[in-house]
Amino acid sequence: MPTNKTNNIDSLGEFGLINRLTADFNLKNSTSLFGVGDDCAIVELNDKESLLITTDLLVEGVHFNLMYVPLKHLGYKAVAINVSDICAMNGRAEQITVSIAVSSKFPIEALEELYAGINLACDAFHVDLVGGDMSAAYAGLTISITAVGRIENNKITMRSGASSKDIIMVTGSLGASYMGLQILERENEVFKANSSVQPELDGFDSLIQRQLKPEARHDMVELFAQLGVIPTSMIDISDGLASDIFHLCEKSELGCQLFEEKIPMEDKTKLTALEFNISPITCALNGGEDYELLFTIKQEDFDKVAGNPSFTPIGYMTSKEEGKNLVDMNGELIPLKAQGW
Amino acid sequence: MPTNKTNNIDSLGEFGLINRLTADFNLKNSTSLFGVGDDCAIVELNDKESLLITTDLLVEGVHFNLMYVPLKHLGYKAVAINVSDICAMNGRAEQITVSIAVSSKFPIEALEELYAGINLACDAFHVDLVGGDMSAAYAGLTISITAVGRIENNKITMRSGASSKDIIMVTGSLGASYMGLQILERENEVFKANSSVQPELDGFDSLIQRQLKPEARHDMVELFAQLGVIPTSMIDISDGLASDIFHLCEKSELGCQLFEEKIPMEDKTKLTALEFNISPITCALNGGEDYELLFTIKQEDFDKVAGNPSFTPIGYMTSKEEGKNLVDMNGELIPLKAQGW
Repeated sequence: MPTNKTNNIDSLGEFGLINRLTADFNLKNSTSLFGVGDDCAIVELNDKESLLITTDLLVEGVHFNLMYVPLKHLGYKAVAINVSDICAMNGRAEQITVSIAVSSKFPIEALEELYAGINLACDAFHVDLVGGDMSAAYAGLTISITAVGRIENNKITMRSGASSKDIIMVTGSLGASYMGLQILERENEVFKANSSVQPELDGFDSLIQRQLKPEARHDMVELFAQLGVIPTSMIDISDGLASDIFHLCEKSELGCQLFEEKIPMEDKTKLTALEFNISPITCALNGGEDYELLFTIKQEDFDKVAGNPSFTPIGYMTSKEEGKNLVDMNGELIPLKAQGW
Repeated sequence: MPTNKTNNIDSLGEFGLINRLTADFNLKNSTSLFGVGDDCAIVELNDKESLLITTDLLVEGVHFNLMYVPLKHLGYKAVAINVSDICAMNGRAEQITVSIAVSSKFPIEALEELYAGINLACDAFHVDLVGGDMSAAYAGLTISITAVGRIENNKITMRSGASSKDIIMVTGSLGASYMGLQILERENEVFKANSSVQPELDGFDSLIQRQLKPEARHDMVELFAQLGVIPTSMIDISDGLASDIFHLCEKSELGCQLFEEKIPMEDKTKLTALEFNISPITCALNGGEDYELLFTIKQEDFDKVAGNPSFTPIGYMTSKEEGKNLVDMNGELIPLKAQGW
């Protein structure tokens, strides 16, 4: 395969590449309500409901390192991140397919661990494994999962639905998954240098758990329904708050103003970040893999969520001209930069 | 990853492995009508229609060789084999997602060729690309496609629906794809030995085309509807006639009797097989990748299809006790052996 005089894939990034490759595609079936460009595709079901479809690929050495990721956790996480995409459209995941390409060096027992984790996640998120494929591979492990879910038509929440002055909110807390990854990588380096040294993971359980076994926030989708709130826009935080608020702003053609002091982070995350000489806000903005839901609501809906410990208001949407900004601890306005992937 | 004292993946085969790994899974959602074990999963849509879901993985070095498979053809084939699974349930494919893991050594232009082939197939089979994922990989190219289709509830055709004495039929002709592969591999060996020798592909176009650019028989699904025929069971021929009739027999708990003289093969396929010292019937039974439809119909429906050049009757279903047999050219009864994958 010649690589000279041609464009390299890395030069475009994931989203640029997908946009370029799919630019010539058009939707032909009337049932294809929405294609590429949100957390899920939308397919017509009936007058009341639509189908949501999402798919994610996990590649060994790119998305996970089997030196410190147990296969059972990996299986769980692979399902969770797909269910999370369904949650990000305000839907309920119901079915998944799981395809695996794996080197024959893997013992069956290792695959059984992986599927035990997948099964645990199926129970936790109430989804059914309904199909898949299994292939040999020359090296490593690749996992491809597709999730299918349902959503009432009047509850569909897309990235593009926010309006100026909508309140920006986030579920749970941010940055812990990223710090969990830093700890695992540090101990892995220590282990590689001297395999007789036991890893120091004590006290970091909560952070490591967030990295290895993230939860899809399907409980938040249920809570929205209970509270009678339909977010105006929503995305799950996979690439980091900065990157994901960018998606909401771009698709809604708006700007935003976030407040650093409002961004929810656990003390353990902040302290560990400082121990690693990382600014805590960087973990939240650029860390990623939190799988919390980032969403906007109308101001008149704020009373429905105010004071609820599951949600934190962190800013509001502005006009596109005002740009995407963060007000830091000193009250300074700092332009946000998208990072991640 | 330890490989000693553990079971090796190869020892079980694809189906045995999937069965073992998914044995503990159960269906929890009432919308999950059918899971693992046919060409597609079935998901409830409404009183009239159901959703079909299927997924296939193509791995470089396992399923395709980029030494002689053009990327545009590969993209087309990757879609076709998924659409073929929807056809095998008597359904219409409508949406696909495409996920790609690819080494950064691939130039963007190569991926554009791949997607041009995917787009061609989307047009040919009237399906929409609605989502996907794109990831780096350390080496090679892996393609994961999921297809979603629809089927009227009274037309759902599963592997398990055949009855004893049903007539076994096949669309088109068999064995050509396998001989196309033999030619491509022969010329690839010649090329590797001496790269100045031009490949001799003249006169083999039809066979090579069947290997590189197979068609999903969605036209046959339309023809069934026109003729008012609903097959009692159906599968697409991906692993070879022997392996795929085994699936129909096993799922329907029946035996079968096939007649060698009835099995449709083009003269070009037979002659090329003989040139390669391969028994022509072996190409049809064990070659695979024909993507023709193998199906059974009730005897009283035979008048609707008799004489139609698209279909060939090749045998009939028998009781399980009678076994799975082929009557060869000499009238001898030979027990069939499943091969493939």
